[in-house]
Amino acid sequence: MLPFKTLLRIDRNSTEAVFKQIASQLVLLIQKGILLPGVQLPSARVLAAELELHRKTIMAAYNDLITEDWIISKERKEYRVSTLLPIIKPRTYADKAKSSYKAKSILSFDRLEHVPLLKTITADFKVLVNDGFPDVNIFPIERFSGEYRRLLTHQHLKKTSSNLNIDGCSIFKEALSLFLNDTRGLNIEPENLMVTRGAQMAIYIAASMIIKPGDKVLVTTPSYFFADAIFRQLGAELITIPVDDDGADVNALEDALLRNKIKLLYIIPHHHHPTTVTLSSPRRTKLLEIITTHQLTVIEDDYDYDFQYQYSPYLPLASGAHGGNVIYIGSLTKVLGPNFRIGYMISTSDFLSSAIKLKTLIDLRGDVLTEEIIASLMQSGEFSRFIMKANKLYRDRCNYAANLITNELSHLVDFKKPQGGMALWLKFNENYQLANIINKSASMGLQFTGRGYFRDKDLSHDAIRFGFAALNEHEIDFAVDILKKITS
Amino acid sequence: MLPFKTLLRIDRNSTEAVFKQIASQLVLLIQKGILLPGVQLPSARVLAAELELHRKTIMAAYNDLITEDWIISKERKEYRVSTLLPIIKPRTYADKAKSSYKAKSILSFDRLEHVPLLKTITADFKVLVNDGFPDVNIFPIERFSGEYRRLLTHQHLKKTSSNLNIDGCSIFKEALSLFLNDTRGLNIEPENLMVTRGAQMAIYIAASMIIKPGDKVLVTTPSYFFADAIFRQLGAELITIPVDDDGADVNALEDALLRNKIKLLYIIPHHHHPTTVTLSSPRRTKLLEIITTHQLTVIEDDYDYDFQYQYSPYLPLASGAHGGNVIYIGSLTKVLGPNFRIGYMISTSDFLSSAIKLKTLIDLRGDVLTEEIIASLMQSGEFSRFIMKANKLYRDRCNYAANLITNELSHLVDFKKPQGGMALWLKFNENYQLANIINKSASMGLQFTGRGYFRDKDLSHDAIRFGFAALNEHEIDFAVDILKKITS
Repeated sequence: MLPFKTLLRIDRNSTEAVFKQIASQLVLLIQKGILLPGVQLPSARVLAAELELHRKTIMAAYNDLITEDWIISKERKEYRVSTLLPIIKPRTYADKAKSSYKAKSILSFDRLEHVPLLKTITADFKVLVNDGFPDVNIFPIERFSGEYRRLLTHQHLKKTSSNLNIDGCSIFKEALSLFLNDTRGLNIEPENLMVTRGAQMAIYIAASMIIKPGDKVLVTTPSYFFADAIFRQLGAELITIPVDDDGADVNALEDALLRNKIKLLYIIPHHHHPTTVTLSSPRRTKLLEIITTHQLTVIEDDYDYDFQYQYSPYLPLASGAHGGNVIYIGSLTKVLGPNFRIGYMISTSDFLSSAIKLKTLIDLRGDVLTEEIIASLMQSGEFSRFIMKANKLYRDRCNYAANLITNELSHLVDFKKPQGGMALWLKFNENYQLANIINKSASMGLQFTGRGYFRDKDLSHDAIRFGFAALNEHEIDFAVDILKKITS
Repeated sequence: MLPFKTLLRIDRNSTEAVFKQIASQLVLLIQKGILLPGVQLPSARVLAAELELHRKTIMAAYNDLITEDWIISKERKEYRVSTLLPIIKPRTYADKAKSSYKAKSILSFDRLEHVPLLKTITADFKVLVNDGFPDVNIFPIERFSGEYRRLLTHQHLKKTSSNLNIDGCSIFKEALSLFLNDTRGLNIEPENLMVTRGAQMAIYIAASMIIKPGDKVLVTTPSYFFADAIFRQLGAELITIPVDDDGADVNALEDALLRNKIKLLYIIPHHHHPTTVTLSSPRRTKLLEIITTHQLTVIEDDYDYDFQYQYSPYLPLASGAHGGNVIYIGSLTKVLGPNFRIGYMISTSDFLSSAIKLKTLIDLRGDVLTEEIIASLMQSGEFSRFIMKANKLYRDRCNYAANLITNELSHLVDFKKPQGGMALWLKFNENYQLANIINKSASMGLQFTGRGYFRDKDLSHDAIRFGFAALNEHEIDFAVDILKKITS
């Protein structure tokens, strides 16, 4: 007899019944070829003794497997693995080195060389500083689990399965458009809204519809690197305009428009990525004028809008008079954290009906259950309360980090406290090498996951985004302490 | 005083505490501008009387809102809506007609005209026949809810948030590659696997990497319409080869290769979409020879592999000797239903590392929680058991539907029972108009959600996919009965 005592491991803390665990693990042994077709299994009595379980438990497992055709029984006495099961493994290579997928591809992908690689954290760390993500420790786990359980019924699955939901499920589109109207001064209907997998997919789809190879796209320098990478991927030429403490230089923008045939402007007016600056009020007014005068197509990326720390928040360009030229893109990932990638695109209904066609080719439908859970939280008011709570927490952390860094690291970095968002843009004194500092920090348990920005023709200093929102005061202390130690 | 009794609706069956419901609903009234900043709220005693609740319940709600800065209190006696809340709505248009998004876009999207539109079901129906989807009534809801609750902890969210998971979370990639090796005779490592949102995204990414405008792509006719649409979207010219009862015509394929410079072959060897035919064994062997001889790049779309109803399943091309030229694409959506869009791409590691770069631009990370739930079910053996259970059910339904349609509808349709999959390919007798039949059926409560295929130069008959997997015998009876009634 096989050593079933070692092969079948019962977890008494599992929510799965013991007989079901045994049945499932027998299936795994069959699939792995440890129990071959035709092989006789021990009687229920023998296996029960071996596993120190009741004979009826083994019988229940065997009966399940008989029903499912994994094993066959002769008069409920002799049990054998079914000989009718497909045997997959022996027909193919036993030797991994022979896999066809060990080959090198004959294709070349030079067009993707410009796409930056995100780095995976493999080393140990005590504190991880991201480049601006929310604190998942305040995530409403109980409500999400509860709603998930409430919604995941066969009846409800059947209902949602028969809807298409390419552009988001209707209950979520309704709730989200009301939420956006209430919080951003927009005036949209659900037909102006398409739900995507994060803002990233929305930018990709909008850009793919607008840009043809050779087109010129206006971006700030620096800008969100994965947006730049999309435009390059689509064959666009990037025309750059500088950013200062008041946001994108709108005069330079107007200048660029006069000198070039610009197909698209990509702009982040709130807490610009990466520099965290907010476009000033006069520049907003001027930009809206330019947009309508030039009939300039704009992607407004407003990923961070919900986190503004001053009394009177700036509204997005999208809520101004722009003649339908502003495609507004946002994300709930900055509210709920990176495990929940829900973004959206807002535009005129004719643009959107084409965008939905393109989305169909990329991603046939969204995550209906998560959309419905969020809709439910929006309708009950809990979503707004959650944002308010997060806002207070992050504002306090922003102040705490800003004060501490001002007091302790003035020799190392310069920064301007942002009006909102989740990160500080730390500009490094030229006497220090950012790359060295990142490496030394890592060796002392402080990991930066954000990208380092290095001095070049457009940037007068090394810089990195210091995401404070996910760090408690103790962790901020730790981070600042390490940076101080390695630079003094 | 406002009519709070009507404005605040308490749901005593909700899992949310009553005081939290009141707090959340007051927030909604504030956000909607019904309770304006500075307005005085009724005392806890008065509101308690109005709502027939205990005074302490109202106090608890008010205290929550004070903590969250929604309301302010003077010595815990007088409560007012905070004057420091941002007022968004009044600054913008009161009139919906003035929204900038009422405009028409100045852009044109002629490049998307070829993308077919899926239709939304709006009419009432008794039975809905899809074009080949699983039965969500057997979906393991308890296990999914249980695992969701187990995994959704703050600690776990924190852990998964700090990983990138662009190509799928590592625990799922490990489990899925073992599952695919066991069931498909593959011989891959996790580095050969990228997780996507359904097979659709995998096809889109693979095609985007391979095709440049003007390239020639070899497809069967008919073929999966959204794959054709992707290739056209990327500017490819489609070269077609016919399909018969043994699958794609491999001689015609070889012929096309000699006459054209072909960049890519797209093929569905198992239960071809839409015709459900399976590529015969001799043709598979010949096709593998052609692939290696011509170094032909292939997308093998194997969306339906897990559902084969004969003893000895055909293995995919991907498990044969193809020199790394076959990009293998599959989906778990056909196992779990359309609410769970998980697909994958298998290829050489160098192709995949570029594919991951492109995926980053489209969709930064996947649905980590769902991936982990499925990984857990794969590791315990439950996933295989679930497929076995579904397989038996669908095989029985396939036989039932095939027998009934043969007996009752031979005047109307012709079909060949497929070796697996979830649909019958019903070819309509030329005396009947498919469009009419679909419309008449709908008026009698029988809705087809699949696309109708109509006679043209490549197709000798009207046809539609009859998805039997999601229909019980009673529903199959109903569908056949309606079709019989309207054609006799």
